[in-house]
Amino acid sequence: MKLWGGRFEKETDQKVEEFSSSLLTDSKMWISDIKASIAHARMLGYQNIISIQDSEKIIQGLLEIAEEIKSGQYVFNPKAEDLHSEVENYLARKIGDPAKRLHTGRSRNDQVATDTRLHLAEEVKFLIEDIQILKKELLLQAEKNTETILPGMTHFQHAQPVSLAHHLLAYFWMLERDRERLQDSYKRISSMPLGSAALAGTGFPLDREQTRVELGFEKVTENSLDAVSDRDFVIEFLSNASLIMMHLSRLSEELIIWSTPEFGYVELGDEVTTGSSIMPQKKNPDVAELIRGRVGRVYGALFGSLTMMKGLPLAYNRDMQEDKIHLFEGLETVKSCVKMTDLMLKKATWKKEKMLNSLKNDFSNATDLADDLVEKGIYFREAHAVVGQLVQFCIKQGMGLEDLTVDQLKKSHSLFDEKSKAKLDHCAVMKARNSEGGTSPTAVKVQIQKAKATLG
Amino acid sequence: MKLWGGRFEKETDQKVEEFSSSLLTDSKMWISDIKASIAHARMLGYQNIISIQDSEKIIQGLLEIAEEIKSGQYVFNPKAEDLHSEVENYLARKIGDPAKRLHTGRSRNDQVATDTRLHLAEEVKFLIEDIQILKKELLLQAEKNTETILPGMTHFQHAQPVSLAHHLLAYFWMLERDRERLQDSYKRISSMPLGSAALAGTGFPLDREQTRVELGFEKVTENSLDAVSDRDFVIEFLSNASLIMMHLSRLSEELIIWSTPEFGYVELGDEVTTGSSIMPQKKNPDVAELIRGRVGRVYGALFGSLTMMKGLPLAYNRDMQEDKIHLFEGLETVKSCVKMTDLMLKKATWKKEKMLNSLKNDFSNATDLADDLVEKGIYFREAHAVVGQLVQFCIKQGMGLEDLTVDQLKKSHSLFDEKSKAKLDHCAVMKARNSEGGTSPTAVKVQIQKAKATLG
Amino acid sequence: MKLWGGRFEKETDQKVEEFSSSLLTDSKMWISDIKASIAHARMLGYQNIISIQDSEKIIQGLLEIAEEIKSGQYVFNPKAEDLHSEVENYLARKIGDPAKRLHTGRSRNDQVATDTRLHLAEEVKFLIEDIQILKKELLLQAEKNTETILPGMTHFQHAQPVSLAHHLLAYFWMLERDRERLQDSYKRISSMPLGSAALAGTGFPLDREQTRVELGFEKVTENSLDAVSDRDFVIEFLSNASLIMMHLSRLSEELIIWSTPEFGYVELGDEVTTGSSIMPQKKNPDVAELIRGRVGRVYGALFGSLTMMKGLPLAYNRDMQEDKIHLFEGLETVKSCVKMTDLMLKKATWKKEKMLNSLKNDFSNATDLADDLVEKGIYFREAHAVVGQLVQFCIKQGMGLEDLTVDQLKKSHSLFDEKSKAKLDHCAVMKARNSEGGTSPTAVKVQIQKAKATLG
Amino acid sequence: MKLWGGRFEKETDQKVEEFSSSLLTDSKMWISDIKASIAHARMLGYQNIISIQDSEKIIQGLLEIAEEIKSGQYVFNPKAEDLHSEVENYLARKIGDPAKRLHTGRSRNDQVATDTRLHLAEEVKFLIEDIQILKKELLLQAEKNTETILPGMTHFQHAQPVSLAHHLLAYFWMLERDRERLQDSYKRISSMPLGSAALAGTGFPLDREQTRVELGFEKVTENSLDAVSDRDFVIEFLSNASLIMMHLSRLSEELIIWSTPEFGYVELGDEVTTGSSIMPQKKNPDVAELIRGRVGRVYGALFGSLTMMKGLPLAYNRDMQEDKIHLFEGLETVKSCVKMTDLMLKKATWKKEKMLNSLKNDFSNATDLADDLVEKGIYFREAHAVVGQLVQFCIKQGMGLEDLTVDQLKKSHSLFDEKSKAKLDHCAVMKARNSEGGTSPTAVKVQIQKAKATLG
Repeated sequence: MKLWGGRFEKETDQKVEEFSSSLLTDSKMWISDIKASIAHARMLGYQNIISIQDSEKIIQGLLEIAEEIKSGQYVFNPKAEDLHSEVENYLARKIGDPAKRLHTGRSRNDQVATDTRLHLAEEVKFLIEDIQILKKELLLQAEKNTETILPGMTHFQHAQPVSLAHHLLAYFWMLERDRERLQDSYKRISSMPLGSAALAGTGFPLDREQTRVELGFEKVTENSLDAVSDRDFVIEFLSNASLIMMHLSRLSEELIIWSTPEFGYVELGDEVTTGSSIMPQKKNPDVAELIRGRVGRVYGALFGSLTMMKGLPLAYNRDMQEDKIHLFEGLETVKSCVKMTDLMLKKATWKKEKMLNSLKNDFSNATDLADDLVEKGIYFREAHAVVGQLVQFCIKQGMGLEDLTVDQLKKSHSLFDEKSKAKLDHCAVMKARNSEGGTSPTAVKVQIQKAKATLG
Repeated sequence: MKLWGGRFEKETDQKVEEFSSSLLTDSKMWISDIKASIAHARMLGYQNIISIQDSEKIIQGLLEIAEEIKSGQYVFNPKAEDLHSEVENYLARKIGDPAKRLHTGRSRNDQVATDTRLHLAEEVKFLIEDIQILKKELLLQAEKNTETILPGMTHFQHAQPVSLAHHLLAYFWMLERDRERLQDSYKRISSMPLGSAALAGTGFPLDREQTRVELGFEKVTENSLDAVSDRDFVIEFLSNASLIMMHLSRLSEELIIWSTPEFGYVELGDEVTTGSSIMPQKKNPDVAELIRGRVGRVYGALFGSLTMMKGLPLAYNRDMQEDKIHLFEGLETVKSCVKMTDLMLKKATWKKEKMLNSLKNDFSNATDLADDLVEKGIYFREAHAVVGQLVQFCIKQGMGLEDLTVDQLKKSHSLFDEKSKAKLDHCAVMKARNSEGGTSPTAVKVQIQKAKATLG
Repeated sequence: MKLWGGRFEKETDQKVEEFSSSLLTDSKMWISDIKASIAHARMLGYQNIISIQDSEKIIQGLLEIAEEIKSGQYVFNPKAEDLHSEVENYLARKIGDPAKRLHTGRSRNDQVATDTRLHLAEEVKFLIEDIQILKKELLLQAEKNTETILPGMTHFQHAQPVSLAHHLLAYFWMLERDRERLQDSYKRISSMPLGSAALAGTGFPLDREQTRVELGFEKVTENSLDAVSDRDFVIEFLSNASLIMMHLSRLSEELIIWSTPEFGYVELGDEVTTGSSIMPQKKNPDVAELIRGRVGRVYGALFGSLTMMKGLPLAYNRDMQEDKIHLFEGLETVKSCVKMTDLMLKKATWKKEKMLNSLKNDFSNATDLADDLVEKGIYFREAHAVVGQLVQFCIKQGMGLEDLTVDQLKKSHSLFDEKSKAKLDHCAVMKARNSEGGTSPTAVKVQIQKAKATLG
Repeated sequence: MKLWGGRFEKETDQKVEEFSSSLLTDSKMWISDIKASIAHARMLGYQNIISIQDSEKIIQGLLEIAEEIKSGQYVFNPKAEDLHSEVENYLARKIGDPAKRLHTGRSRNDQVATDTRLHLAEEVKFLIEDIQILKKELLLQAEKNTETILPGMTHFQHAQPVSLAHHLLAYFWMLERDRERLQDSYKRISSMPLGSAALAGTGFPLDREQTRVELGFEKVTENSLDAVSDRDFVIEFLSNASLIMMHLSRLSEELIIWSTPEFGYVELGDEVTTGSSIMPQKKNPDVAELIRGRVGRVYGALFGSLTMMKGLPLAYNRDMQEDKIHLFEGLETVKSCVKMTDLMLKKATWKKEKMLNSLKNDFSNATDLADDLVEKGIYFREAHAVVGQLVQFCIKQGMGLEDLTVDQLKKSHSLFDEKSKAKLDHCAVMKARNSEGGTSPTAVKVQIQKAKATLG
């Protein structure tokens, strides 16, 4: 029996039911649905809107249903219209008439919004934890690699040598911003619509505060029309998830390129790579590729949800049912990708020698040679030009700046000396960049302290 | 046993398997997979690359598997890596060693691309048929309503009266363009990658032409690197699907607004509407809302697939596995929405009186009054100004232009006469617009003939 | 002269210069660029990295340039590569050699990131102010309309009567969330990259803290690699802007529909509407339509920027120059749309009588009749069915529930009485919904107090 | 003077004018606007709707205006509402009263749609030409490099050696599909709305066929409501442009990675690279990065336009004015990126030795060793395992499969022989893949013939 059958003369077409059903998606948040119903029923009883006995029977019935779902004893009817009617109908079969009083003073409109927010609030907490775990892994590996040197790239060209620690910490801070954004969004997720009824509030003397406290919401929604039609929290989450995925796609891209024989900076673990059916030698960075590819799912979910909400008049419109399709697509993707990235890092072996060798003849020490002149009073732009000439000379000779003798340096500019030559060592170059936030081991150690502070 | 296990020392992590598995999606195209394997096996036999006996055993085995899947006797192992290895492993259990020869001269890279194209080519044909059905319904209703008049809107304001036929036919032509685009794309879908192997072609003397003919492809791909990494056909389909959904969202929007008591131009059937758990009187246009909302799914799938392909180097990358997630999301959505729109129209009752009443006092006959002066030699801009004054006068009097007497008209401009007044009748206004493609019944009948010609 | 010309033997192709130039976009943030250069120069002087005299000459020169730009005396060369080199070259022409020292210890990579953040931080403050102004307007109109009644809609069908105040306040809270999100994002925008140099920090003993304080940043960036390649703040802003636009598109949609003669709930001011070249009577809600349409620009900018960042390796890549194209597109659109919405509301005339009339016979009082039975002990689902029958009866009679006599009510269910009839008045219905956040004038007044508290 | 001022009592607010003005965008298509007006005026004269004299004066006036715009003598007033009123007002100042007759039987709604289509049709032809030029360049370089060998990649790991010709031709075929899609779309662009007037057609006896022929449209639109509100052609173009950009982003990505010292497969020309203000040695692939980054602009424009059209009721809505913002953003980006890619290729130097060296020890000859066994009757999966063991052995020894002696091979499997060893040469491997569409020089030469056939 459908909940709203009264007026209708003809049976709803079968295909329409399939088209309209949201059970497959809704059912992922059955725990929230039952929790919210229990809190609502308890409040109805306390407020004497329904009798205490009815309230208790409803609560008892719902607890039993929860147990049955958990144990697999009760399985949702896949043809049900939605989770809410499915549970309510089952409750009616279980406890009889009192079940019919559960829906007093609420509507599916505020119920579904409450369920979704309750579910997402929980999931966001878990996601934050997983991000912290990933950040810890990055930090751990950074601590071990403050002196591991590799080419820092701009325009994907060797620019200046950096430490692997510094490189990994760049991702740490991206993820810290991601965590911060999720944290900031939490108060907007944790706002309880229950009590808004269909759209206008209700005449029943609900105690929204009691329900809020039981469900652990931070506040109640301020306006019933807004409450039943606000999907900002879904879109904001998907936007935050998109940024996370974007960050992970950048790291994945690097791991993929670093896994080529040409770079060879890293060997990914067997656990996160696969072979080829026709090429037995290959170790394919599938997990990294899938993470990079799945950024499309989350961007798609974000755009899908933004599209859905464009131009919708107040208040609830059925279009909004689509929110969960997009939300779960984004949520499940980002959760698994954060975990997989952590696994990839745990199973990665950094090829330090390859990184070091890559710096040879790469001119990423050029800036330091220019700065040497600047410190001696030469204008920056002139120093730049002098070094530019030297680089051209070295390229023609097939050598690095570090291979130049002090004499060769002096010939190029009289202010060059032995110390200038010493500055050309790539490790010296890296160590010299000790401004706040720079790549020198000293600066990175300070950075590591700041990073630790974000891990609580 | 995994197909590529040879080199790997450690077991692939369980979670990674789940993360990487594409079986859930792939399995939707099992028919194409088996068809393509049969064609490949037959060709291998004909070319003496494998023995005729092995070829026949493979084909027989695959046919049996197909029967078992159809009958539900054989169910895919949900933990399998993908459809292809699942089927191949089962074939090996069924027919033994010859199964191991099936993969000769092909790779999962060309296999999966072939399966996807075969599947989509079939589905596009079905979708075109469904669009034709929907177009027929629009045409049928148009034929009945060439004299049914309603306000034509620009800026969602009454502009000029049009016939319901003309209005419905506007959607007809949108869908005709959609059909045409799908048809144009077909040749790009129906291009067979099989024979491209992993990425570089193969040394086995395949006869790609034989396989192509058996599978009904229009051509074979020209370049093996491109063949295994081309996902244009997926994106092009999703783009075409997005346009279809956009069109349907416009029609749904109109049906939703027209269902309000304020407009009341249409009553949607009980089959495509639902009630409310708390408001028994409501007849909610849920199906129209869901169609409008689901435009987000298809746009999202399009953007997801475009994102996935951005910046990927040649040739196959695992990211591309995501193509099917987006493709099936888009495909299933657009298929069901086309069908549901057809159902909505079939069950719609047009409220002709409401439409007609809506035209009263709406000044959508103003242009014709201006044109009357223009035809009498008055400059267009001046005529425009004269009528503007009359409209202001009528608004203040709470009347329509059609309520003005001939005398009142003449007072406003001496060239107005009885015929001017006659032109103010809304039906006359509609009938006067008989330029090619215009709304007059005469012009619409010509349009209907053109429309019929597209239905083959 | 280009800043990096040294090594290059051939002239860069003219078309490439046009293709690469970012001046047109950059120049919008010239104030930030000069401010940041002044702070950098001052710090270089304090730290004795350059002489105090040079520092002062640079600062003086930059101040003069700022004056000249403001007064229109100095106009950027449209062929310049970017804003930074344009200003620096002009400084060199103005003050000579000391200008060459300005770039010490910094790079265009950290400079451009600093400029963009400085500019956006300022703009976000203005945007927040504009949002507060719009919220104030909504609140003002809400205060005047706590008893103005109109049909509250779900599924865009009449559901329950609500007050115009309540309806307008729904938008108030959307905008309050928008403001909150912008506020939350501020700390992530206001983080200073300057001092990160090209990607790895610098060996010059910069005092980043001094520069930060002078420029008013809340903190300095923690990692130089991240600092020069982080565009999160752009994407986060565009995501926040997308939500604002989505909200405005919903309001615009309502104003457009409410402006039709069928609804007629509002008359928009002449200032925000336009006529038609061929239909003199029309008052087109162009501004509302443009706002609704421009949601596409901001969504597009968001997805453009997300696309740009997908899969980019560390650190700065030239792709990132595109950030400003998207940022300014989004920023300018959202700023003007917030202001235009405020203007639309200020110039709107609510047609209260039309709203009230719209409620007649609309059955939006049905729930209250059902609730009446529920309060008398009837099960909710049964009460629902009883009222459903009555609604069907009334529809057939062409009357509203409010037109039923007490006798007729009693015939339908014995528990109905005079009070039941009284509850059917639409104003009574609205006033009864006095749960927290509900539409009753009492509840709305509480809501208004909460709303005021957000206006500071 | 505004064209529609009649009814309005108050001046439209200045900011609203700025907000609404489309002149900046429209003015890019002034040629189309004037062409279409000339054709319309001529037809009006032929049909005696206006006098031949007026018709001639209008045409003469418009031709003069065109000359003045071209010569820079006449500059659009940036404050004008749109291009159409700007030109029409100027015409009125120039020729007086007859100008007022130009707008007879048309509306800005059909006028602007006609202008946009006319402009885009022209631009699409140019774009197709530019694509053909780029395809020619790819083909030219392919012809020179059928024997140039480099690692073919899957999962961005060395898979099998391919020729540079084959690699470049992969892009050729992508672009050929792009060209084909543009060609297919042409008939949908080249459909003339003129004659649809505001939305409903017109009563004036227009000869749409005459206008169509003069303007070179392939057909006239079939339905006036559809004609003024159809923006499919814009979206379809942006979708086609997105695919082009996606393809170019893939090539750019490869050129960027191939430009690193680690790969070193290519040296890009000085014309398309830039240096760094602080690192004189760098040769940054800026143009490739900008192309890759600008894919975001076109994707953004596509999604902006899809968003704009979602859920819009018939017929013209002002939202649709946004079409040109998105169209021109996409059009200009794709045009310049196609040209820049051509320039990049023309200026690229392929480092063949680096490519060849990269194949050493890379096991991309493994499949051929496995196939050798398969041809001798060993099951594919077993052969795979044997070679897998050999690869592991070689990796431990730091050698390639090509370094194994015949004896070592025989020890691994008795069926290996001298010919097996010969097959391990990378060039032999490449040459062996001579299936249709494969990488062998023989197969590539056939491919080149097919490619030439597409260049007309």
